[in-house]
Amino acid sequence: MSTGSPVGSHRVVSPAGALPQAAVRLDPDPEIRDDEVRVSVERLNLDAASFRQLRTKHGGDGAAIRAEVLAIIAARGKMQNPVTGSGGMLIGTVDAVGPRSPLGLESGQKIATLVSLTLTPLLITDGLERWDGESEQVPAAGTAILFGRSIAAPLPDDMPEALALAVFDVCGAPALVRRVVSRRYHSAPTVAVIGAAGKSGSLSLAAAKDAHAAKVVAVVRDQVEAAQMRRLGLADKVAVADATDPLALSHAVTEALRGRGADVTVVCVDVPGCEHGAVLATATGGTVVFFSMATSFPQAALGAEGLAADVEMLIGNGYVPGHADYALHLMNAHPRLKELFNTRIGAHA
Amino acid sequence: MSTGSPVGSHRVVSPAGALPQAAVRLDPDPEIRDDEVRVSVERLNLDAASFRQLRTKHGGDGAAIRAEVLAIIAARGKMQNPVTGSGGMLIGTVDAVGPRSPLGLESGQKIATLVSLTLTPLLITDGLERWDGESEQVPAAGTAILFGRSIAAPLPDDMPEALALAVFDVCGAPALVRRVVSRRYHSAPTVAVIGAAGKSGSLSLAAAKDAHAAKVVAVVRDQVEAAQMRRLGLADKVAVADATDPLALSHAVTEALRGRGADVTVVCVDVPGCEHGAVLATATGGTVVFFSMATSFPQAALGAEGLAADVEMLIGNGYVPGHADYALHLMNAHPRLKELFNTRIGAHA
Repeated sequence: MSTGSPVGSHRVVSPAGALPQAAVRLDPDPEIRDDEVRVSVERLNLDAASFRQLRTKHGGDGAAIRAEVLAIIAARGKMQNPVTGSGGMLIGTVDAVGPRSPLGLESGQKIATLVSLTLTPLLITDGLERWDGESEQVPAAGTAILFGRSIAAPLPDDMPEALALAVFDVCGAPALVRRVVSRRYHSAPTVAVIGAAGKSGSLSLAAAKDAHAAKVVAVVRDQVEAAQMRRLGLADKVAVADATDPLALSHAVTEALRGRGADVTVVCVDVPGCEHGAVLATATGGTVVFFSMATSFPQAALGAEGLAADVEMLIGNGYVPGHADYALHLMNAHPRLKELFNTRIGAHA
Repeated sequence: MSTGSPVGSHRVVSPAGALPQAAVRLDPDPEIRDDEVRVSVERLNLDAASFRQLRTKHGGDGAAIRAEVLAIIAARGKMQNPVTGSGGMLIGTVDAVGPRSPLGLESGQKIATLVSLTLTPLLITDGLERWDGESEQVPAAGTAILFGRSIAAPLPDDMPEALALAVFDVCGAPALVRRVVSRRYHSAPTVAVIGAAGKSGSLSLAAAKDAHAAKVVAVVRDQVEAAQMRRLGLADKVAVADATDPLALSHAVTEALRGRGADVTVVCVDVPGCEHGAVLATATGGTVVFFSMATSFPQAALGAEGLAADVEMLIGNGYVPGHADYALHLMNAHPRLKELFNTRIGAHA
């Protein structure tokens, strides 16, 4: 068997020339090419937006939801909700590794995929019979395929699965924050994390500290979160502001930094309308990193122009080499960060 | 009179706390604060999308279009089409300069505003009586206000007004390309400009050359544009590809660069769906600069993650200090670039 395309285009059935994520249908054949990996699936984690749409559509009827998920996977060769466009991720055990796979995985390893289900060839063999259709956690049997450029991370032995998945879900953020903070400046930069109490926000705080930021400001929406931040102990200053109010946000940041904007502003608030405030809160020559999927490209571009703001604006790329390991390292280095995550995922540590 | 907010929030009438661009209504009072500049308006250039909407709505009735533009400006204190949200720019003569204005303008200078009409306080005094409502070029009399952080550029003596405006319209692109190319790499980077035959694309080519890129690839959509690029003479290689076909685009770029992706990929194609191709066309560790307003933030972020692409993605900020002068400099340094622009704006040079 020869090697495939590293991005998986050889698995695209239709339309011709598309990449797997944009494809209508993938070929989930369990036979692997020399650079592919086959995973024996144990559980699908459906994307929250996708599961919500399915539950609403079927009025909470679990059997109908299960039937539709099965039908989608059978028709598309992948789990991509046709309405929301979103997928999720999966957990499984490495089943077969092609001799030319560059992923470094070994048979028998328990892994989570860090690429979306929307581009992962998937074949279900148990009719999802163990799933009641009432939760986005889907026990499943079947096979999934990883390409040469897919990303998967071994699940750590020393961490509950749900916690590890919550960390993996946002692991791109701390890795990129570390990179931006440690390489961009001659002297240590100041950092403001907007939405610091969430998962990507709190990991970004830890990364900024770890990368020796001169001063780290946590911006949160209310006093409850402010108290959480003080207990977390990773921020030099904690400020409360509405991130969608540009003048209030920039005032909160510049006040915390004694009259200057932040050298690096990290946006982790998942609501629309934070672009202008983030730009205004950033010092001339500084950098804004947008991780929120609610970010509007035109709002950011035209906002910075309208404010005559000489700032660099980065689209938060979810992939940075070593991101999963780095996020786990931060989590283990900060017990109170782990506590915060357990609160977020509803676990009792 | 005291100074105002440098971003103009003191001119916002409603809603309270908004920035001028997001405001429903601005105060266009001609009396200026100490850091403001008053411009005597000569002509408005309505944004193309805005004018199209108005013309369609009124079935091409020029008098009705004029009446609506007048009503919008009277109601909002600025020209911002409530349907498209867009504005345009204006040309005028500097009328009064506050003693603490940082803009460096002098009374009597003829200027173009480089910030949008959507955030510029505007008062019309002639009822737009010289405008027939049949073109987006609106002869007008009245006053406009510039803030401390507004941007305006003197119109050059040695260039037709229409050409200068076309250059100003995209002048952020070459300035940012120069910055990225000249500061990001230890050795000179290779550059691919996607959509190189347009205004921002061709200026980006010139900037990449000027910044001593190792090799510059112009990617265009057809042979007509390819011939224009060869005549322009600013690219080392010219490639033809559909920018919305990710595999075709990346193949065209890597072929032109002998098997490697570009260190810097500049996206100037104003159609949706170019994100994944641009990411795939970029070398590991490289940079993608998105200038197209059709760029989708989630498509770029999730695309790079799905492709496990370690690339930095920049939101093209339309403001870089000195951008207007630099673009005029490039235009004057390359007579064939000027020819190309004249073709684009329909002028006969």
